[in-house]
Amino acid sequence: MPERNRRLVLAQRPTGNVEEETIRLEHVDAPEPGAGEALVHTRYLSIDPTIRTWMDDVQGYLPPIGLGEVIRSTAVAEVVRSNSERYSVGDLVFGLTGWQDYALAGEREGAMQLLPPGIDPTAALSVFGTTGMTAYFGLLDVGRIKEGDTVVVSGAAGATGSTVGQIARIKGAARVVGIAGSDEKCAWLTDELGFDSAVNYKTDDVGARLREACPEGIDLYFDNVGGELLDICLAQLALRGRVVLCGAIATYNARGKIEGPRNYRNLIPRRGRMEGFIILDYLGRFPEGQAEMASWVADGRVKFATHLVDGLEQAPAALNLLFTGGNKGKVIVRVE
Amino acid sequence: MPERNRRLVLAQRPTGNVEEETIRLEHVDAPEPGAGEALVHTRYLSIDPTIRTWMDDVQGYLPPIGLGEVIRSTAVAEVVRSNSERYSVGDLVFGLTGWQDYALAGEREGAMQLLPPGIDPTAALSVFGTTGMTAYFGLLDVGRIKEGDTVVVSGAAGATGSTVGQIARIKGAARVVGIAGSDEKCAWLTDELGFDSAVNYKTDDVGARLREACPEGIDLYFDNVGGELLDICLAQLALRGRVVLCGAIATYNARGKIEGPRNYRNLIPRRGRMEGFIILDYLGRFPEGQAEMASWVADGRVKFATHLVDGLEQAPAALNLLFTGGNKGKVIVRVE
Repeated sequence: MPERNRRLVLAQRPTGNVEEETIRLEHVDAPEPGAGEALVHTRYLSIDPTIRTWMDDVQGYLPPIGLGEVIRSTAVAEVVRSNSERYSVGDLVFGLTGWQDYALAGEREGAMQLLPPGIDPTAALSVFGTTGMTAYFGLLDVGRIKEGDTVVVSGAAGATGSTVGQIARIKGAARVVGIAGSDEKCAWLTDELGFDSAVNYKTDDVGARLREACPEGIDLYFDNVGGELLDICLAQLALRGRVVLCGAIATYNARGKIEGPRNYRNLIPRRGRMEGFIILDYLGRFPEGQAEMASWVADGRVKFATHLVDGLEQAPAALNLLFTGGNKGKVIVRVE
Repeated sequence: MPERNRRLVLAQRPTGNVEEETIRLEHVDAPEPGAGEALVHTRYLSIDPTIRTWMDDVQGYLPPIGLGEVIRSTAVAEVVRSNSERYSVGDLVFGLTGWQDYALAGEREGAMQLLPPGIDPTAALSVFGTTGMTAYFGLLDVGRIKEGDTVVVSGAAGATGSTVGQIARIKGAARVVGIAGSDEKCAWLTDELGFDSAVNYKTDDVGARLREACPEGIDLYFDNVGGELLDICLAQLALRGRVVLCGAIATYNARGKIEGPRNYRNLIPRRGRMEGFIILDYLGRFPEGQAEMASWVADGRVKFATHLVDGLEQAPAALNLLFTGGNKGKVIVRVE
């Protein structure tokens, strides 16, 4: 008797926020693992802003999720049956399960990565996963952070942003400034995570506060949100300043025309650089980043917060948290 | 008896186009060269879009021109009196004379560069001057052009743009596409300068024409104009595409709010880079670029056009040509 599989599929494309009609819950039989395959049971879903972009009918770095298809998502899962020597029952794996209870892990196509023993699954999805590696390679490789830099990060209380600020500090930034959406988050950044200052974009005059916090301009802006904050930071770019384009969460739910950053022109007199990246390109270098990250986590120099949401059916609401700013740190859905 | 000096000064800051009331003609005595100085007589003014940006009260890569000050401009001038061993009467020099008949050349402060004997003064201001070097270093150093690239350049019939396309061809670009403002200019690009195709932005559907001309996307967009063309090219950027920000002439005269390039977001999935530069940073490397350029000009692989305008008083009208697209190639004012 196959296991019963709950799965959340794309019922209709959202025009703005993910609403009730966007997602449909289905109950189906779990798939049967073939030769060389294992059946895995999803335990923890990684909730990332990029999932929202896959719901649009736009060719991005991955194809859009088709109507009726399971919502694409990475997760930590547990092997429950195996016809493969690669996977043993009880192993924890990381991979693209989607928003469902059961998925297949293959040996080549659809292969999943075995978690090292003893690693906390939520840490595997945050600091040691794509989230933490996005912060690491975005800052070091794309942003080429150097000692003495003034670093500003938006979405600073999010999983990636909070890690960016802490790595910037470790790498010798002269000033680390976070932009977040509540006083409580700002206090967390400065009191717990070692940021020099934090700006509440909902209540502060961001331009004025950044000028105070960055009197010599911004050497490196790590942009998770796009929109008006990007424009403000471009205006305050220091000579040879760099903008790392990681995401544009402020625009993903936009219904009408998005406004572009009119201060992009400042890149000319400032000799500035604005560059985008996708963390999948760095998969082969993850061990390098994970090793350094492990040492920082071990000696307490990188802290991370997890915002746990219980229940597979809560995944759409968990995704919306990222857009309303309802989270601090990494949003993870515990499936059972 | 000092020489009489005609000079054009900034009478009031323009809000859009340079108008009659923007510039005032004054007749004054020419300055007296002190010890170590020479008096030079301006022969050819280099008319560049950047002059318009200096008229705004905005701190750019150079301070704005003050009200009542001579309009800042580079030129080729002739030494007419000299108290310096550096300059001999009759020497041709290149430097910042401003829009006036006479200026002083110093030995350190305000030093001017001696032109090699035999060089045509208009060539010194175009292919061998900042214009040609902007094309050269922008394409090679900022854009890191490589063999097989699809290269698109806007303002392609301008002095810089036309040179960019020809260098791209020499450096092995697979496709060279120019965007210009008339069919006649487009024909010049393809028939005389070796561009593969040219798009008339005033009459063509630019997006559709670029998709035809660049079926694999744009690897390198050399942007002289900004505005909507930048947005269209960002949308068609190839993987790891680069946007070289050289200028934004479409926005310099804008009165209201400028629109930013909303497709900047495409830099993320495309892993794209958008970078600005100022040619002054490359002054020390000019000999390297000029040597290579000289060989290309000598063997006919780089051609250049000059749009000569006669009379110092015509300098404001000559500047406006750049914004109305009335020129083909380098705009130069012959002072007498």
